[in-house]
Amino acid sequence: MSAAAKQHWSEIVKEKKIRQAATIPKEWILTNLPPKDALNVIDFPKKSGLLSEKENEITNTEVGTLLQNLASGAWSAVEVTTAFSKRAIIAHQLVNCLTEIFIERALARAAQLDEHLKTTGKVVGPLHGLPISLKDQVNVEGLESTMGYVSWIGQYATKNSVLADVLEASGAVLYWPETFNHVFGRTLNPYNRALTSGGSSGGEGALVALRGSPIGVGSDIGGSIRIPSAFNGLYGLRPSYHRVPYAGCVNSLEGQEAVPSVLGPISNSLSGIKSFMQSVAAQSPWLKDPMAIRKPWNEAEYRLSDHGEGKTPLCFAMLWHDEVVLPHPPVMRALERTKEALIRAGHQVIDWKPLNHVEIYKNVSTIWTAAAAEDYRIVTAPTGEPIIGSMALTPGELVQSATIIPSDPPGFRPSAEGMSAYELWQVHKKRRELRQAYMDHWNATVSQTGTGRPVDAIISPCAPYTAPPHGLNRNANYTGIWNALDYTALVIPTGLSVDPAIDVKKPAHSFFSETDKSIYELYDPETFKDAPITVQLIGRTLEEEAVIAMGEVVDAALKASASSASANL
Amino acid sequence: MSAAAKQHWSEIVKEKKIRQAATIPKEWILTNLPPKDALNVIDFPKKSGLLSEKENEITNTEVGTLLQNLASGAWSAVEVTTAFSKRAIIAHQLVNCLTEIFIERALARAAQLDEHLKTTGKVVGPLHGLPISLKDQVNVEGLESTMGYVSWIGQYATKNSVLADVLEASGAVLYWPETFNHVFGRTLNPYNRALTSGGSSGGEGALVALRGSPIGVGSDIGGSIRIPSAFNGLYGLRPSYHRVPYAGCVNSLEGQEAVPSVLGPISNSLSGIKSFMQSVAAQSPWLKDPMAIRKPWNEAEYRLSDHGEGKTPLCFAMLWHDEVVLPHPPVMRALERTKEALIRAGHQVIDWKPLNHVEIYKNVSTIWTAAAAEDYRIVTAPTGEPIIGSMALTPGELVQSATIIPSDPPGFRPSAEGMSAYELWQVHKKRRELRQAYMDHWNATVSQTGTGRPVDAIISPCAPYTAPPHGLNRNANYTGIWNALDYTALVIPTGLSVDPAIDVKKPAHSFFSETDKSIYELYDPETFKDAPITVQLIGRTLEEEAVIAMGEVVDAALKASASSASANL
Repeated sequence: MSAAAKQHWSEIVKEKKIRQAATIPKEWILTNLPPKDALNVIDFPKKSGLLSEKENEITNTEVGTLLQNLASGAWSAVEVTTAFSKRAIIAHQLVNCLTEIFIERALARAAQLDEHLKTTGKVVGPLHGLPISLKDQVNVEGLESTMGYVSWIGQYATKNSVLADVLEASGAVLYWPETFNHVFGRTLNPYNRALTSGGSSGGEGALVALRGSPIGVGSDIGGSIRIPSAFNGLYGLRPSYHRVPYAGCVNSLEGQEAVPSVLGPISNSLSGIKSFMQSVAAQSPWLKDPMAIRKPWNEAEYRLSDHGEGKTPLCFAMLWHDEVVLPHPPVMRALERTKEALIRAGHQVIDWKPLNHVEIYKNVSTIWTAAAAEDYRIVTAPTGEPIIGSMALTPGELVQSATIIPSDPPGFRPSAEGMSAYELWQVHKKRRELRQAYMDHWNATVSQTGTGRPVDAIISPCAPYTAPPHGLNRNANYTGIWNALDYTALVIPTGLSVDPAIDVKKPAHSFFSETDKSIYELYDPETFKDAPITVQLIGRTLEEEAVIAMGEVVDAALKASASSASANL
Repeated sequence: MSAAAKQHWSEIVKEKKIRQAATIPKEWILTNLPPKDALNVIDFPKKSGLLSEKENEITNTEVGTLLQNLASGAWSAVEVTTAFSKRAIIAHQLVNCLTEIFIERALARAAQLDEHLKTTGKVVGPLHGLPISLKDQVNVEGLESTMGYVSWIGQYATKNSVLADVLEASGAVLYWPETFNHVFGRTLNPYNRALTSGGSSGGEGALVALRGSPIGVGSDIGGSIRIPSAFNGLYGLRPSYHRVPYAGCVNSLEGQEAVPSVLGPISNSLSGIKSFMQSVAAQSPWLKDPMAIRKPWNEAEYRLSDHGEGKTPLCFAMLWHDEVVLPHPPVMRALERTKEALIRAGHQVIDWKPLNHVEIYKNVSTIWTAAAAEDYRIVTAPTGEPIIGSMALTPGELVQSATIIPSDPPGFRPSAEGMSAYELWQVHKKRRELRQAYMDHWNATVSQTGTGRPVDAIISPCAPYTAPPHGLNRNANYTGIWNALDYTALVIPTGLSVDPAIDVKKPAHSFFSETDKSIYELYDPETFKDAPITVQLIGRTLEEEAVIAMGEVVDAALKASASSASANL
């Protein structure tokens, strides 16, 4: 019997947090933590004194090299897991980014992997010995998956999710986390602790940024992989629906299949993103999850077979803004920098004209919320915990942002009342039309590119702002649009961060909407100081391979541009 | 303004039929038609006197060879199109299988293709010059798509559907048809005109069986490609959701995306099925239809990379019956014959245990009908035409058959009342669980096969009967189950047909259900005489390549078994 039925929800949370704290090894509890008002703590872990030189080296190494060193036996899985575990515990003490903490289990697994390599001379799989942290909804046998619901405390997974199985079969060492909610409290942004780390995979974002994990797995229905990646200056991929297996994970709004949540990787290198996607596909997840799409990793697509084989210039299109909200100055600066860098690298860049964005925001919000109220009510009923804003974060915010735009298209019933199955079908139908129109719009760019192809990829803001102060992340349109269209979307850090000396506040423009005005007013250079700035690269549906390859092109261009800029100093 | 709003629906139908008749060339109207009581007319076309020897040869040639002769210029597209057109018109006079008739347009297109080949020395694409008939919901610019609704008469397509574009880009010559409904009346079965040709692509089935078309395109939400294929003794493939582009086609129940209708080929050879699927994939339909899955034709999968590379024996599992309805004696005989043939060819055959079939039938019926009543009411409102049984054929029949089973699982609201979006989500969720359970069940067969793999494919009846008398096709469970699970399903003719001397009526068994009893009572050997007998080969989701390859294995085994049987006579 669950304790949930008897206690007040706040009591249940307290007990859970005590249990969580007890799992932290005492010798890893720091006494030299920076003061609360020290905002930027990104460099603290290496100065903490807890990590040896080698542990610093390991945790600062990017995934491609980590995997090589693990496969060759140069680094053991136990030492790599120990290094990341220690750093993760440091990170947790800085920004509160973990939920389940299971170091012993991870180390036992790492030891088995080392033994296997020693005995057989072979790796278990392509991710041999690599620690991978999971958002808590990715069930791991024997561990709690609360998804932030107090009502789900005490629910221990009786079996692995398919993704956990797939990653273990690839040789990964699974470990933990999560973000702001009733159970665990908010995660702070390591670049500026007055800012949010984003949601709903914000724990992952902060943890990976502090290099407490080389790869984190998040989920994304409207931006929950990409917003934390963007706010923490990381690479993050939202794959298309059903490319990464979701079966056996905990979720809410189950049965909502029109715009489903997807799982995907967050990493501080593109090699991490690529290794994850390749390894998952190599395990034929479509034989384990009936919804997973039978599409092996396509090496030809990765070599840009659909984009001139990478031999000719690529043509990118810049979405400067969505005609609803103008992004803050740092975001605009990153888009400009990306454009310059790509042109300098010999590529073409044209403008992207947004099409029907407001209608799409409205449509997808209508789908998400068609029965959401009823769903949340049923889930939270056992404890009476309040339904907080972040629970319905992305959908709710899309609605909020879309409905206050005067030009909203009419015709959809307000979501709070619910709707009939027939009405829902009409919304699905409308959405298919919107997707078709957007595809036709994309295909029509063939006349503007000069490459003989339509635009190869779109470059867009990740959000209208860099990480905002806690509680003020209220617009997920720049990510949600691509969920609605099911386009592959990759967040790429530009290497830039908010600099109050450069990113000054602009005079008020002619506002698109009330939301635009309130987001304009939110900006203050000092408040956003040090926040990382990222861009989003958008490819077509199920085009993960080519998007990763084009991501490498953009990344290389930005890095070349940064070194040329510093050479000019 | 549509004429539909002013006239009685039966008047509209009359006019449409007059227009249709006027499009038939007078010199192709036959005066030597067999008498109405001549039931088996399958051999009439070649004896009709209308076809030259070469036209007989062309229309009796299978698709692989047709394409070679067209590509080499041995046969011109015009002569091939003319031959099939003439034979199609003969077929129409025998069994009423066509709707739109556009010979001139097809011949003009064929002439262009011939010119292209002559001028450039190259084919337009892999289907160069091949006539392909389309179910009338596959929009072709400038033609009516009624889908059998009187209310849609006068609706001319303003552009091609994506599939029509894709086929034309592959070099195909598009032409027409369809089956029993208010607009065009019923199509008869060419093997026994007292029997049905099946629905809802029955016109295609009869046309292809009479060799009036080498490939027909049908749609299938619960069996509408496979039932006509089965009843007319043809190959017919139901691909997985979104493998073949559906965009731009006319459909009803739009927005119902959980168990969508799919398009697929019907042919009298497996080379026709394969050419169609390869050609469609080669056109990257995912760049034209936002719902189409980015999965190129996978030659490794066709070489059975997931099934021992075709080097080891395959293991098939026989679904003898679904524990709801026992198939008629001819169907059981075909299953036995197939088992013997496969064992003789060196393969393994085990039994398939059905899992949760009744629950799955009920679940998918609930999805289809969640808002169907409201949908049909709206579509048919303009004319007041009655809503006939065949409109809701497959879903309706699945419901009917499932609901009278005493052991039905409770918990779903009757569909006629409609349901809320939240309730629909719960049905979706249940369905995902049923799909997962069926997948786990399949995977668990690894312990019984001896191949080191789970069962490679399932072999199942196509229906509990061969083609029944008109109006008595009331059970689509043996096809609908695979739509619900989204498994790839291929109909394969066994070369057998109903022989009253062999297929005697069996004594009554202990009935599974009332449906079982009524289907048992339906059987009478004389009534079903000459009906072709087929089996269904079932592979996993999006496994079209391997299913076609395994279909070739089954087909070869059956043909070898047939020649060995005739050698023994």
